[in-house]
Amino acid sequence: MRLTKGQKLLFIGDSITDCERNRPNGEGLFGALGKGYVANVDALLQAVYPELGIRVVNMGTSGHTVRDLKDRWQADVIDRKPDWLAVMIGTNDVWRQYDTPFIPEWHVYKDEYEHTLQSLIAETKPLVNGVVLMTPFYIESNDKDAMRATMDEYGAIVKRTAERNDCLFVDTQAAFNKVLEELYASTLAWDRVHPTAAGHMVLAKAFLNKIGFEWVRSTDTSGNKE
Amino acid sequence: MRLTKGQKLLFIGDSITDCERNRPNGEGLFGALGKGYVANVDALLQAVYPELGIRVVNMGTSGHTVRDLKDRWQADVIDRKPDWLAVMIGTNDVWRQYDTPFIPEWHVYKDEYEHTLQSLIAETKPLVNGVVLMTPFYIESNDKDAMRATMDEYGAIVKRTAERNDCLFVDTQAAFNKVLEELYASTLAWDRVHPTAAGHMVLAKAFLNKIGFEWVRSTDTSGNKE
Amino acid sequence: MRLTKGQKLLFIGDSITDCERNRPNGEGLFGALGKGYVANVDALLQAVYPELGIRVVNMGTSGHTVRDLKDRWQADVIDRKPDWLAVMIGTNDVWRQYDTPFIPEWHVYKDEYEHTLQSLIAETKPLVNGVVLMTPFYIESNDKDAMRATMDEYGAIVKRTAERNDCLFVDTQAAFNKVLEELYASTLAWDRVHPTAAGHMVLAKAFLNKIGFEWVRSTDTSGNKE
Amino acid sequence: MRLTKGQKLLFIGDSITDCERNRPNGEGLFGALGKGYVANVDALLQAVYPELGIRVVNMGTSGHTVRDLKDRWQADVIDRKPDWLAVMIGTNDVWRQYDTPFIPEWHVYKDEYEHTLQSLIAETKPLVNGVVLMTPFYIESNDKDAMRATMDEYGAIVKRTAERNDCLFVDTQAAFNKVLEELYASTLAWDRVHPTAAGHMVLAKAFLNKIGFEWVRSTDTSGNKE
Amino acid sequence: MRLTKGQKLLFIGDSITDCERNRPNGEGLFGALGKGYVANVDALLQAVYPELGIRVVNMGTSGHTVRDLKDRWQADVIDRKPDWLAVMIGTNDVWRQYDTPFIPEWHVYKDEYEHTLQSLIAETKPLVNGVVLMTPFYIESNDKDAMRATMDEYGAIVKRTAERNDCLFVDTQAAFNKVLEELYASTLAWDRVHPTAAGHMVLAKAFLNKIGFEWVRSTDTSGNKE
Amino acid sequence: MRLTKGQKLLFIGDSITDCERNRPNGEGLFGALGKGYVANVDALLQAVYPELGIRVVNMGTSGHTVRDLKDRWQADVIDRKPDWLAVMIGTNDVWRQYDTPFIPEWHVYKDEYEHTLQSLIAETKPLVNGVVLMTPFYIESNDKDAMRATMDEYGAIVKRTAERNDCLFVDTQAAFNKVLEELYASTLAWDRVHPTAAGHMVLAKAFLNKIGFEWVRSTDTSGNKE
Amino acid sequence: MRLTKGQKLLFIGDSITDCERNRPNGEGLFGALGKGYVANVDALLQAVYPELGIRVVNMGTSGHTVRDLKDRWQADVIDRKPDWLAVMIGTNDVWRQYDTPFIPEWHVYKDEYEHTLQSLIAETKPLVNGVVLMTPFYIESNDKDAMRATMDEYGAIVKRTAERNDCLFVDTQAAFNKVLEELYASTLAWDRVHPTAAGHMVLAKAFLNKIGFEWVRSTDTSGNKE
Amino acid sequence: MRLTKGQKLLFIGDSITDCERNRPNGEGLFGALGKGYVANVDALLQAVYPELGIRVVNMGTSGHTVRDLKDRWQADVIDRKPDWLAVMIGTNDVWRQYDTPFIPEWHVYKDEYEHTLQSLIAETKPLVNGVVLMTPFYIESNDKDAMRATMDEYGAIVKRTAERNDCLFVDTQAAFNKVLEELYASTLAWDRVHPTAAGHMVLAKAFLNKIGFEWVRSTDTSGNKE
Repeated sequence: MRLTKGQKLLFIGDSITDCERNRPNGEGLFGALGKGYVANVDALLQAVYPELGIRVVNMGTSGHTVRDLKDRWQADVIDRKPDWLAVMIGTNDVWRQYDTPFIPEWHVYKDEYEHTLQSLIAETKPLVNGVVLMTPFYIESNDKDAMRATMDEYGAIVKRTAERNDCLFVDTQAAFNKVLEELYASTLAWDRVHPTAAGHMVLAKAFLNKIGFEWVRSTDTSGNKE
Repeated sequence: MRLTKGQKLLFIGDSITDCERNRPNGEGLFGALGKGYVANVDALLQAVYPELGIRVVNMGTSGHTVRDLKDRWQADVIDRKPDWLAVMIGTNDVWRQYDTPFIPEWHVYKDEYEHTLQSLIAETKPLVNGVVLMTPFYIESNDKDAMRATMDEYGAIVKRTAERNDCLFVDTQAAFNKVLEELYASTLAWDRVHPTAAGHMVLAKAFLNKIGFEWVRSTDTSGNKE
Repeated sequence: MRLTKGQKLLFIGDSITDCERNRPNGEGLFGALGKGYVANVDALLQAVYPELGIRVVNMGTSGHTVRDLKDRWQADVIDRKPDWLAVMIGTNDVWRQYDTPFIPEWHVYKDEYEHTLQSLIAETKPLVNGVVLMTPFYIESNDKDAMRATMDEYGAIVKRTAERNDCLFVDTQAAFNKVLEELYASTLAWDRVHPTAAGHMVLAKAFLNKIGFEWVRSTDTSGNKE
Repeated sequence: MRLTKGQKLLFIGDSITDCERNRPNGEGLFGALGKGYVANVDALLQAVYPELGIRVVNMGTSGHTVRDLKDRWQADVIDRKPDWLAVMIGTNDVWRQYDTPFIPEWHVYKDEYEHTLQSLIAETKPLVNGVVLMTPFYIESNDKDAMRATMDEYGAIVKRTAERNDCLFVDTQAAFNKVLEELYASTLAWDRVHPTAAGHMVLAKAFLNKIGFEWVRSTDTSGNKE
Repeated sequence: MRLTKGQKLLFIGDSITDCERNRPNGEGLFGALGKGYVANVDALLQAVYPELGIRVVNMGTSGHTVRDLKDRWQADVIDRKPDWLAVMIGTNDVWRQYDTPFIPEWHVYKDEYEHTLQSLIAETKPLVNGVVLMTPFYIESNDKDAMRATMDEYGAIVKRTAERNDCLFVDTQAAFNKVLEELYASTLAWDRVHPTAAGHMVLAKAFLNKIGFEWVRSTDTSGNKE
Repeated sequence: MRLTKGQKLLFIGDSITDCERNRPNGEGLFGALGKGYVANVDALLQAVYPELGIRVVNMGTSGHTVRDLKDRWQADVIDRKPDWLAVMIGTNDVWRQYDTPFIPEWHVYKDEYEHTLQSLIAETKPLVNGVVLMTPFYIESNDKDAMRATMDEYGAIVKRTAERNDCLFVDTQAAFNKVLEELYASTLAWDRVHPTAAGHMVLAKAFLNKIGFEWVRSTDTSGNKE
Repeated sequence: MRLTKGQKLLFIGDSITDCERNRPNGEGLFGALGKGYVANVDALLQAVYPELGIRVVNMGTSGHTVRDLKDRWQADVIDRKPDWLAVMIGTNDVWRQYDTPFIPEWHVYKDEYEHTLQSLIAETKPLVNGVVLMTPFYIESNDKDAMRATMDEYGAIVKRTAERNDCLFVDTQAAFNKVLEELYASTLAWDRVHPTAAGHMVLAKAFLNKIGFEWVRSTDTSGNKE
Repeated sequence: MRLTKGQKLLFIGDSITDCERNRPNGEGLFGALGKGYVANVDALLQAVYPELGIRVVNMGTSGHTVRDLKDRWQADVIDRKPDWLAVMIGTNDVWRQYDTPFIPEWHVYKDEYEHTLQSLIAETKPLVNGVVLMTPFYIESNDKDAMRATMDEYGAIVKRTAERNDCLFVDTQAAFNKVLEELYASTLAWDRVHPTAAGHMVLAKAFLNKIGFEWVRSTDTSGNKE
């Protein structure tokens, strides 16, 4: 397990991260972390590693692209001084190219996406203990689908950025592809973008596996294993 | 893993099971399973064992005691023909003795509790592949506390009932006690009864461990383990 | 133009037909026909053929399959004595197989679909001046997609049924395919099922073309053509 | 067809244009164009000319007169850089003279109307590819009616302004008059001002005919014409 | 003044009478009489003749025609045993012929109107001290207007019925015509049917004048006349 | 009749004047004048003297005392340039002395009341055609009642102020006393302060009588007097 | 203190008793006893005599007269088997005579009031340990006021009924009169009927004093008296 | 009784004081004092000592700690010039340490608590007639419970501060402990923090006893004591 006692883990992203989190703090009582994978990660950390007291903060904002993250990076990331930072962005950067194709101002193309992401990570990496970069994803099994193909290209940019900056890398598309072998896309997401509870658990698992989370600890007897 | 392809797993209980599930079906799209441990169990089953197609149904109803379960057992359990049945009941049977002590009609004392639970399980066990009995719990670390002590007695009844009827047994109080060693009760439940997301994950883990759920399957690469 | 003065044209179907129509009548003032293709058809009939006084009735109901239509056919079709009947059903018959695959009671498979549709149309054809059968559709350009492929099979059943009963036939999938050559699916439907205003206009046009609607009448000067 | 690939078409006007459009942008997903003739125009453009990718923007605001348009012209027209501009204004300029006759500050009389409209068009014409001027209208068949007569005078001003500035001109009153030969006014508008869906289709048709929209294109097979 | 101490005066009609009256009683505290002419009549009776203690009851129901009155006449008129009865009905009988011309079941034509009204009045006249018949009206100054002309025919039926049954007769159309000489229709009614507060006062005055109401009583000093 | 063609009549006061009037204008369509005596005055002026086109404005604000009027006098009276001004204030100045006796800051005692009222009227009288001063009132028949006695003292101040400044004076208390001879206070006002519809009509009549309103004009035939 | 361990004390009455109590039970968690004197009595009993475990039930219903109590007496009193019964009724029996004087069906005059109350008490007295009869009251200091005088007569009937049936008697009017010597009526009740929190405390004190409640018990040290 | 005629008594604190009080004033009509112990204190003062006219003001704010009080002390205490001041703060200072243990910024530890409280009291004591310091409390009978133990330490700080500054001191924990001997914690508070009506009465009694309130005054006959 890479996180240690008392560390602060901050997530930033779009609606998939947001999931009705509290504002402006993104932490606290009564479901402040929203209803998505961030809440799952927090619940699992607290249930399995209560002694670590990991502090999870959710800074997702619905509809945001990497361009929007840049505008609020100082306030929502740097000023909050996280020990660990997780970033999952790009869905809307791509989606707007496909659902509102006639409004180009709303699109964030690959060059801007890579450049902006790189500059944010390069600025932040030295200030934190670790950064986890998660790809955006599209819950569509056909990799010839136009939007899926574009999303894969953005995922490749995330991968390059993770390698270039020595970050942990989570391939969420690969995690979903595994499940899509068994289930049709609309079982996991009404609109191929916003996951069901099961889809959010896929994300939480992919993230936790990457940071060395042990599902069954040697000392764990809570399940009364037979 | 004890559940097999295409089986139906039905949960019945009180508000801890209910968690705003859909009515009357307790299954389907858009969060029909509510926001608690039942939704977690379903999400984890679907994320980790998508090929099994386990069908989860939530028949929890807020405020119910075992006396209420008896009234709706035919409609909500027998008629729905589950393959597996999970029961967690008793919170309100005990709680009303402590929060409305002057209204005895609302209390379900130990004799009635044990008798009713036993008769429901005895009737149903032959009709299903398996039954999981989960204790009620009280998120209070002091086992001398009056209500905690009573709850432990009801938990013991559940244990006896599980043994007598050859059911799987989940000691949820034990699962919470483990976490309570590290965290104060109100971190896990505002009122010591309704768990936070972390508390529901404790319940989901305890349940899944008991039915042989493998957190990391030999074929699992979704987390891109390093 | 196949409809004549004073005739009643009744549409029946699922949410794509319903679109928040008034209940129980499905006709009248203040948007009683809903916000979808039925309202478009009515608006175009009234704007272009005001002298005909065609009476349009919307009997769509969200979530319905052909099995549900059968249950309300007497009340919602026969008893209302339409002169013309338009039917577009099948979306949910197929969709439930893909978004809630574990609940087979909610699926209507091909045999039941064809048998039920045939029996409804055979019963009704002699009672009306004309029947228009519209295929269900799936706004997905990849015809190898599993759900699109199934939907195409249901569309083929509609075609066979139209031919067998001498009905007018509208291939809505073909109409959408034409537009999908230019636009990505999510421009036309958030969830590939419920069309945008443009998608509903595609349906209205396909329907009107089939009944001989003339977009520009010899007497039409309303546009002040130059 | 006068519009070409990728052009932006902006509508400005009062409540008849507004129809609950999104604010502040007046374009985008989920019915952002409102529920009136602007949405119809967009839907028909997208359904029939998907390859053109015309971008439609709705800048209508309920209750506005030409005096209000002047105040927001820079922000809502000039700054948005449309390729084509459509203007329909004047209803409230006239209506307030008849429904609140005792509040003269709310009336915009003919001189101010003509002067203001002329100055806005003269300023904007050089900046765009084309301007379409639509008359205000009053859904009343009796042209001796006091308010109808006044509205006709404002319509004549629009016509003069179109001619003087070399704009396309749409006579919406003439389009409604054609339908009013068959239908009584209250079938088309509860208050003789705000059209039903059919009335909005009359407006959309009049507009589209003027810009050279072809209802049935040589390549169109979407209706499966027999 | 024709009403005497302690009498009950019951009004029945459509939305113009209803005006959000209380249900089911149509009398009592807190605006139970609605916001229209019935409330005005009651307020003026109580303010000017407090010693009479006239009990006013409002049985208007929005949307009703004379056909609907017939269905509830026993419960809403006969069983309530009024001393005086006032009836104003016919607006919707006529209006539906003009705003939903294609739905003939919603129209009540002249023969049915006259026959039904006559039979209700003939049945009730012997049971009460007096009956006041008020014409329906249409707030449109042009008596060649199609709907106004029809409404005048229904008013003539009311007049004949009043004469035939020896009832008091109030010509509400004549009362409005007087005001329409000075004010345009939409100053008095947004939709030419539902009056503003001023329009309701016109109705109240016409009614009160007919029953012999004295606006300035010989004993009245409340206005501190100079 | 003292008002002449096209004049503006502005009312200012507290909740009895306000009655849910529109904000900020206090005039216009759709019940902008509220539901109290101001709306009655306007309705009667328009119904009986439509040719005068009197413009009524309601500047009442719930809870206000004369101290509050002073703060908004420039904006709500002077700047709106009325031809006639009507003022009814004092209810809350007195009431707070009786319902919140322990909060002296909320009381406006007699000296301040008289001084403030005098200074507002003296400033405004020269700017308008006429001023009508209406007393505050208390709907309680017992003139020994403590609050009634105080209210009478404030009424006497209004009378003195009217005489000193040559204003029309309306003794609303006297108008209510006349009705209170017949009806118990709670028939006219739930709380002895806010009148029912009948109570507002008492106020409207007292006001109109004072300005020379003729209830039955020589030319009036609207009631079809027999 | 007349009540003993574990007894059930049931209150029945009108809105003054009701105060938004829970339905149908009138007891339980979360303010089930409403916000009035019943809640105060319960709170004081529980705070001062926690060891007695008195169970308080609130069966007040807004708007009720003694005639309404009769209709629900079996269900709401007899079937609930109270040990002690408290009745306060009569406000509406009197009030309707004064606020809706023209609707005599809503009035309950003295004969009916006395007869009904006597018969209910005579039936119930043998079934319970004790009955407390509380007078209705009117928060008006002037005992010559018409409604106050009538209320006093009803209070006298309650007193006679208490004596005749050997019940405890609480003169609530006398309790309020004491306070009215110092405070004006509207400080204690907006409408002279529904008390403020202070007025409800007056009622609670009068009731508790009558049943022998000791405000300061010999064993009480909770106030840390100095 | 320590308070004298016309004095202002101001309470400041957290949600236990707040209880939905009015904002911003915290005094006035219609439940402005909220629903907790402050309202009880006011009701009892007014019911028992109406002649004193004590003015009670509630400045509680939910969620506040002593750190928050410091920020608003000038506006909410000093500027309002109370004669008596009552302070009960500390619940949230402690609670956040136990329900959100991972967010240290939300915790107010003992040093800051004592220092801040002392400085506020020292500043204010000279300006008022008297100060009452009330301890925070935790409705948990087990004094070994971690949060209860901490709360007791904060209570000890309040006691020291009271002694050091010569204030009246109310030990609310002791008052609750007395009741907790008889009743389980959840009977008095759902979450061990926010009291039921009975719990608020415990607080009101403890406060009133400390200021010399006489429950039964020598002149009191309101209860018709036998």
